[in-house]
Amino acid sequence: MKFLAATVESVLLADTPGTFVTRRVDQVTLDMAGIPGDLHYGLTRRSGGREPMYPRGTEIRNRRQLSVVSAEECDQLAQQLGLDAVLPEWLGANLLLRGFPHLTQLPPGSRLLLPSGGGLVCEGENAPCRHPGKIIQALHPTHPHLIKRFVSIAKKQRGIVCSIECPGTIVQGDSLRILVEPIARLQPQMV
Amino acid sequence: MKFLAATVESVLLADTPGTFVTRRVDQVTLDMAGIPGDLHYGLTRRSGGREPMYPRGTEIRNRRQLSVVSAEECDQLAQQLGLDAVLPEWLGANLLLRGFPHLTQLPPGSRLLLPSGGGLVCEGENAPCRHPGKIIQALHPTHPHLIKRFVSIAKKQRGIVCSIECPGTIVQGDSLRILVEPIARLQPQMV
Repeated sequence: MKFLAATVESVLLADTPGTFVTRRVDQVTLDMAGIPGDLHYGLTRRSGGREPMYPRGTEIRNRRQLSVVSAEECDQLAQQLGLDAVLPEWLGANLLLRGFPHLTQLPPGSRLLLPSGGGLVCEGENAPCRHPGKIIQALHPTHPHLIKRFVSIAKKQRGIVCSIECPGTIVQGDSLRILVEPIARLQPQMV
Repeated sequence: MKFLAATVESVLLADTPGTFVTRRVDQVTLDMAGIPGDLHYGLTRRSGGREPMYPRGTEIRNRRQLSVVSAEECDQLAQQLGLDAVLPEWLGANLLLRGFPHLTQLPPGSRLLLPSGGGLVCEGENAPCRHPGKIIQALHPTHPHLIKRFVSIAKKQRGIVCSIECPGTIVQGDSLRILVEPIARLQPQMV
């Protein structure tokens, strides 16, 4: 097994009523359903616009327990939007990583392993939606069209969502081991 | 969304005490933990040799709730082993599909959608182990070295494991819609 690495620069929690925006904390302890007290906590959730294959409101397994972003992709987003910074709080991220620049391209099934013994599974790209764009626009009223531009620019660089494979604690400053899921060459029919 | 298709040729259940070998049934009803009564049923399971990143016996999320194989890959396995057939029962499979030949190469995160409204998520290739080889060897005593040969030959053609995303019923003859997870081009560091 080949391990890559990343550092947990920040740990964040979505526990402010009425918003998905996260706030920095020193550490969180995961169980099988995510981070207790976080907005996205749950073994299941209701399907929405991201799951058009199920009727809206269907109870499905929660594969979006944690949102993870990379500092390098946030910097790139900021640059492309003409802003000083794009903060993980505005994206509703739970983890800000550094040292793994192209996080969004991590294949589903890859693992993020914690020093505490716990482990996350990458469930795929977190496709951009308008909500973080609205937050960013509200904070930068003199920049035009940030909502639309965020949704367009953030594709393939807005981070990933993860589910919990093995409970554990995540502490700011942790070194993660990343185990990349090998990719099969796709058959022509599947492309 | 581009859907591919496959037919459920057989539905099988591992409910015989003392063995992983499955038997054909008309249908099964899934809940979030898999097929009630099946050997692999559970929201969690104990880690083993397939998860060397966790100490053996650690409670982890059960991403191996269902085993799915393709008739075409079973036929190819049989041919390469010099046998008349390799039956899904011997592989402990819960579903035998036809019409999606390279099932084992389906990327993790892809969905198998059921006519009942339920859905499975591909958790990746089911890497071959010795147990099915032992069953096949015991049934073909005049063929030499089938255990070792099975483990070697079955790589990348022994099917996939799935978890339940949305409960439902699977009936023999069902037409599945398959939603292939798009693959990002891997960064050199990740290869």
